[in-house]
Amino acid sequence: MIKQKVYVLRLGHRVERDKRATMHIFLTARALSASGVIYSGQRDSDLEKRVQAVVDKWGGAFKVKYEKNWKRVIENWNKKGVTCHLTMYGINVDDCLDKISKNKEILVVVGSQKVPKDTFQLANFNIAIGNQPHSEIAALAIFLDRLFQGKELKREFKEAKIKVFPQEKGKKVDFQP
Amino acid sequence: MIKQKVYVLRLGHRVERDKRATMHIFLTARALSASGVIYSGQRDSDLEKRVQAVVDKWGGAFKVKYEKNWKRVIENWNKKGVTCHLTMYGINVDDCLDKISKNKEILVVVGSQKVPKDTFQLANFNIAIGNQPHSEIAALAIFLDRLFQGKELKREFKEAKIKVFPQEKGKKVDFQP
Repeated sequence: MIKQKVYVLRLGHRVERDKRATMHIFLTARALSASGVIYSGQRDSDLEKRVQAVVDKWGGAFKVKYEKNWKRVIENWNKKGVTCHLTMYGINVDDCLDKISKNKEILVVVGSQKVPKDTFQLANFNIAIGNQPHSEIAALAIFLDRLFQGKELKREFKEAKIKVFPQEKGKKVDFQP
Repeated sequence: MIKQKVYVLRLGHRVERDKRATMHIFLTARALSASGVIYSGQRDSDLEKRVQAVVDKWGGAFKVKYEKNWKRVIENWNKKGVTCHLTMYGINVDDCLDKISKNKEILVVVGSQKVPKDTFQLANFNIAIGNQPHSEIAALAIFLDRLFQGKELKREFKEAKIKVFPQEKGKKVDFQP
């Protein structure tokens, strides 16, 4: 059972350049049991629709919100919870996860290309999933998997129209439209 | 200390559509201590150069190879090691990781849009990082993190020109060109 409420904040979305990467982030957040995502940068109604279509089909109560003012999102969140910014320049996740996982409301911030400097100051924790360049999608996935201790992968999604039955070979799916 | 030799096979790369997603996969593979990647689909010399530039700067001995015939890659690999195909239709990673981690040479297969049916048959294991739709980048990240039990994040990369010193706030980097 997952106890924390986790939202992911995606900074600086660009409609054309980031449409696939941001979708990967949103689907990763949903599949790994975040409650929802907030994004800043350019508003992208097509992206919102595509995420909603996944939620309608695959279930759960995942939320997508756009907020132009990302600083205010963090400042408001910090009144009740903690903000964790994922960055290769931060402290290794092993060295701070214990402190973070005690909190009930966690905002995870992931950037796109270049993250504004203020992010490092506004976040309560700057966390590195390794200090090598890689992918914000990969970093988010490992962070959520560690935070939820693997429980997120076995969660049932309510009101799903489609369900996968794990197979050694091939695909088995139940679809009730 | 990481004992297994792991390669990642990326299927069906498309130069225009997948240039960012495949780069995320390659960088994730490298940062999380895979030995190298092989990709099929369209050859992409720009992508290869960009990965090599990261290796030259950040160190390590990561290899990138193109192979048109991806089936042969799997068939040859299976003579000495095991192949794990990451798919939302497979067996939960928790239920098969013990068997896999005993092997010394592991090929991890990740698709792009639609994976050829043969992949499910040729792979020794079809492994789900959850049975929800998300991201092959996220799936690869969690698989490697679980396989290497988190040790991959603390590895030192040899002959690096650049090194990050983890900080609570801000960035500290040593660059020796």
